Amino acid sequence: MSKQELSIETVDGCCVPIMDAALDSTAAVEGATVFKALADPVRLRLMSIIASAGAEICVCDITPQFDVSGPTISHHLKVLREAGLVDCERRGTWVYYWPLPERLTWLSTLLSVPTPATT
Amino acid sequence: MSKQELSIETVDGCCVPIMDAALDSTAAVEGATVFKALADPVRLRLMSIIASAGAEICVCDITPQFDVSGPTISHHLKVLREAGLVDCERRGTWVYYWPLPERLTWLSTLLSVPTPATT
Repeated sequence: MSKQELSIETVDGCCVPIMDAALDSTAAVEGATVFKALADPVRLRLMSIIASAGAEICVCDITPQFDVSGPTISHHLKVLREAGLVDCERRGTWVYYWPLPERLTWLSTLLSVPTPATT
Repeated sequence: MSKQELSIETVDGCCVPIMDAALDSTAAVEGATVFKALADPVRLRLMSIIASAGAEICVCDITPQFDVSGPTISHHLKVLREAGLVDCERRGTWVYYWPLPERLTWLSTLLSVPTPATT
C-alpha cells in the first residue's frame, strides 16, 4: 500500500467550507493537489467506479471499462492513491481497490454551501 | 458577463454522488473540467476568497492578497468564470465577482458520502 498520500491535517475530521472562510496558501496547495487528481476524465471515472462498487473492486474488473491501456490505467490509479482518494492491496495476480471516504467527505465539506434557512 | 460556462445538465438540481453510481464518459469529461478549474492553488484560493466574501467582491480587493500580477489574477478568474464557479460584472473601473453556489453544491453532492446509519 502506498504511504505517499497527502497528509491534509483535517482529513480525518471536518474542514471549513470555502463559503465560510478563505483558504490560506498552504491549504490551497494541498486542496489543489487533490482536485488535480480528479481533473482528468479517466481518473474521475475511475474514482466513480471504485467509489460506487459497494466493496473493493479488482483492477481486472476496472480496466475493461476503458479504451486505454492497462499501464495507463495503472498510472491514473497511482495518482488517485497518492492523493489519498483510494487505497489498494495486491492479492496474487490482481490488485484490489477501495475508496477512502474520509477524503471524499473532506472535499465535499470544503465545497458545501449552507442551505438557506426557510422563514 | 461570460456566457461560456459549462452547461452541466444537473447544475440546477442535484446530481448523483459517485458513491452511488459511476459517471458515464460525458459526465466525467464535464466534471473533470470543473475540477481542473480548482486544481491550481491560486485559483482555489481565489475561489475561496470570492465564496467567503459574503457578498460580491471587487477585483481591487482580491489582487493585493496575491503575489502574482494583475493579468495573472485576471486569467485565473476567467478560468473560474468559464467553469461556472463565479460570475462577474464590470462597473466603471472595477470588476466585481460573486460565487455561483449551484456549481459548488453540484460538486459537493457529487463527492458526498452517505452517513452510516447508527444501529
